[in-house]
Amino acid sequence: MKHISSTQNALVKHILILKEKSRTRKKSNQFIVEGQREISLAIKGNYKIETVLFDPEICNETTLKNILGNTTAEVISLTKDVYQKLAYRTTTEGILAIAQPKSHQLHQLHFKNKNPLILIAEAPEKPGNIGAILRTADAANLDAVIIANPKTDVYNPNILRSSVGCVFTTQIATGNTLEIIEYLQKNNIKTYCAALTASVNYHTVNYKHAAAIVVGTEATGLSDEWLKNSSQNIIIPMQGEIDSMNVSVAAAIVIFEAKRQRNFQ
Amino acid sequence: MKHISSTQNALVKHILILKEKSRTRKKSNQFIVEGQREISLAIKGNYKIETVLFDPEICNETTLKNILGNTTAEVISLTKDVYQKLAYRTTTEGILAIAQPKSHQLHQLHFKNKNPLILIAEAPEKPGNIGAILRTADAANLDAVIIANPKTDVYNPNILRSSVGCVFTTQIATGNTLEIIEYLQKNNIKTYCAALTASVNYHTVNYKHAAAIVVGTEATGLSDEWLKNSSQNIIIPMQGEIDSMNVSVAAAIVIFEAKRQRNFQ
Repeated sequence: MKHISSTQNALVKHILILKEKSRTRKKSNQFIVEGQREISLAIKGNYKIETVLFDPEICNETTLKNILGNTTAEVISLTKDVYQKLAYRTTTEGILAIAQPKSHQLHQLHFKNKNPLILIAEAPEKPGNIGAILRTADAANLDAVIIANPKTDVYNPNILRSSVGCVFTTQIATGNTLEIIEYLQKNNIKTYCAALTASVNYHTVNYKHAAAIVVGTEATGLSDEWLKNSSQNIIIPMQGEIDSMNVSVAAAIVIFEAKRQRNFQ
Repeated sequence: MKHISSTQNALVKHILILKEKSRTRKKSNQFIVEGQREISLAIKGNYKIETVLFDPEICNETTLKNILGNTTAEVISLTKDVYQKLAYRTTTEGILAIAQPKSHQLHQLHFKNKNPLILIAEAPEKPGNIGAILRTADAANLDAVIIANPKTDVYNPNILRSSVGCVFTTQIATGNTLEIIEYLQKNNIKTYCAALTASVNYHTVNYKHAAAIVVGTEATGLSDEWLKNSSQNIIIPMQGEIDSMNVSVAAAIVIFEAKRQRNFQ
């Protein structure tokens, strides 16, 4: 088994750049996934794992084997110093991996459900919000999450971390707003856009047919393209002093109302 | 008007300690609130503002007067350097204040609503989650949020920040779990405890009477005291790969189901 003991090692430097730079991730067709559960979920989600790096003092070989199963990844052990340099975790689990991204094109979406339930987020800015949305999407077993006009790739380490691995368990597509709208229309999927104007209360809408719940940013909401093409604008009644909710919280409230109407089936 | 131009000024040092140390906040009966909206909400929530400090280059005197209204706080202008030292914001608004905490004892809770809807969080750890819960509580106009066995005071700057000022708009009480349970029983408020065992799906419960939704930590859930005294345990069906939701998201889903049942009244 290969062993790395120097923080100046070329692969170590490459990993640090992969964590930092979206462009490098794209160019080398690689990203970094960290954590035992996260790597397990990536394998389960049919992500190709190229290389696994672990600190034997934290993650022993039995645990490692349980996580990797039949995966053919190269396995490299690290000294404590090298692992600490690569890991972001405070409660670290001693393992990270280099994996290959999937393609996230709209035409690749495949729905098992005749009446899919989809969440669309336009230009979400905070990685923590995207991660939280993906976590809710997993819990609700959404048919897909579509990110319109993304500001970053989904393999941003802060998205991976806040999603606790749900990037790998949820079908994700990205695209620009206009092509997504066209896709939805072609597939007879209605759009329910969270908006302040011309809106009905979110719980008065019927979400039992093929439906996409669409949310914008907290600062500016959805773009005009969405609002012009909305099947129905929806709003969560705000009865306090403030006028906006956290976008991942708002998305969860509407998603679970849709799930409730569908009897969680 | 008093003016501070030195970062070594005694009040500046005191403010920095107030932001950092819960003990100092308690001892001096003061806390720091930052931001225009936050200070407005604190004033609206009848918090006593002792001192307002502002950077005239960012927050002009007209804005300042609009925020302060008839408040009798001492007003101090700051140089840019001093303000930058005190502010946490990246998108800063040029104003912060020294305010007096309120008391948050259970017996001080006052419900306008005959059938109050309450959220109880036991020992929440992350300030961001507490802030998010308070933000949802404001949106839902909950009758109270009760924090059981709190790990920090509610005037922790990270709670204030993530609540976007909803610490001031929501009735908050704190106490230990046993006294809260006793309080709820005495006031005929039913408890719906988020738990994995002996639970029914959250949306099958009737929340129209006096009801408290109780959530624990993501790591360990609720303590036995809550589960033993629960009117009914509830669960959000998890249909994906992961087994837990973010606590503030889970709370929001149940709160808004209760609001839906109550027709948002």
